[in-house]
Amino acid sequence: MRNLKLTIQYDGTKYRGWQRLSSTSETIQGKIESVLSKMTGEKIQIIGSGRTDAGVHAQNQVANFLTSCDFSTDKILNYCYDYLPEDIVVKNVEEVPERFHARYNVKSKTYTYYICNDKVRDVFTRKYSYHTNHVLDIPAMKEAASYLLGTHDFKSFTNLKSKKKSTIKTIKDITIIKDNSNISISFTGDGFLYNMIRILVGTLLEVGMLNIKPSDVKNILDAKDRVAAGEAVLAKGLFLMNVEY
Amino acid sequence: MRNLKLTIQYDGTKYRGWQRLSSTSETIQGKIESVLSKMTGEKIQIIGSGRTDAGVHAQNQVANFLTSCDFSTDKILNYCYDYLPEDIVVKNVEEVPERFHARYNVKSKTYTYYICNDKVRDVFTRKYSYHTNHVLDIPAMKEAASYLLGTHDFKSFTNLKSKKKSTIKTIKDITIIKDNSNISISFTGDGFLYNMIRILVGTLLEVGMLNIKPSDVKNILDAKDRVAAGEAVLAKGLFLMNVEY
Repeated sequence: MRNLKLTIQYDGTKYRGWQRLSSTSETIQGKIESVLSKMTGEKIQIIGSGRTDAGVHAQNQVANFLTSCDFSTDKILNYCYDYLPEDIVVKNVEEVPERFHARYNVKSKTYTYYICNDKVRDVFTRKYSYHTNHVLDIPAMKEAASYLLGTHDFKSFTNLKSKKKSTIKTIKDITIIKDNSNISISFTGDGFLYNMIRILVGTLLEVGMLNIKPSDVKNILDAKDRVAAGEAVLAKGLFLMNVEY
Repeated sequence: MRNLKLTIQYDGTKYRGWQRLSSTSETIQGKIESVLSKMTGEKIQIIGSGRTDAGVHAQNQVANFLTSCDFSTDKILNYCYDYLPEDIVVKNVEEVPERFHARYNVKSKTYTYYICNDKVRDVFTRKYSYHTNHVLDIPAMKEAASYLLGTHDFKSFTNLKSKKKSTIKTIKDITIIKDNSNISISFTGDGFLYNMIRILVGTLLEVGMLNIKPSDVKNILDAKDRVAAGEAVLAKGLFLMNVEY
């Protein structure tokens, strides 16, 4: 069996997220599996680096799949290019060792959340950023972000219902960049809980709007209670940027 | 009567262009007039700086209209913001002297055409740029562009059917920028003929792909014949950037 690694870009606007749910619901995984299965004549199952929620986008999602077909990687790339819908592109197909697993082998992931911070919304980024006309205190947001770095129990920052899974994660880096009216907040970490980045961004926005102090973020972490943190911001501003192995 | 100047951003993807055609067809002018008429109770007619074709976008289209309503410019801005569809935004409303006419007073306009020049298309700019994976000779395109500067008869570069209108125009500047896989070609001139920029870009692409020589552009101008020039590229990559008065 060959093991093939895919790098995938997608516009999540009209999908119910990455993960295949049923044969009728529109998911990115489902679309790609359907094209690869048709090409190979096998029942292809792809393993993503992780799920992305409904409406979340990706610049470089990674997935792998096993196949006994003998098509060249170029042929697979071109087939995907021709048969996937216009909002999903397989950017790269690569032969990898059989032990490579797109989810288990993840070292870290980087997500970026885009905010359009102007008096009026921008029609061209309306599907790819969250618009707010509030004045935001960027230095305060950067200070708050510094308290989130490192290994913490992020229980306050997830809508995860299961009590079995560990809520301890490590955030390696948070970078906030303001370029005119465009703000991007990038998070790199070993993994992120359900809705975690959107709740982190919602909480950083509370800091930016001076509704809470930067140091309050430490208390929110300590509370280990979802109600302590801010609201989850809209999915449409969120991009999975890179997966590192 | 008050004269009000609007600055308008729009995503032209789903519109039949700027100009109102009938009460049922979707046009940007039609949408704005309908909102302003509802607000003021008058039958508002707006005068655009010029038409944009179906599918063409604008960052800063300019229009003006006469009204006897006494709403503040802020109130008009907010009303438009609340009632226009999400792909049209009135960015600014300004009181101007009665003699101001958005079309007659134009000194120059700047349009930019975006090209995504990569092996694979980019899903996030698929509605806002033209994708080609051809290798393009940018210096050759710049040389060809230099022959287009100044005052010429651009008859070869328009699909205009009317023989009454002058086809003599002045191009003040053409700037070609390549930033990784993104290429932008900006044109500033006193005015542009029907489909002129899209045919100019199509011709510059022929030069970039080495199908014709840069200096051939001079012969195409001299021919004064539409068949001499390249094809018109797709509307979706074209943006009206600014109108100068």
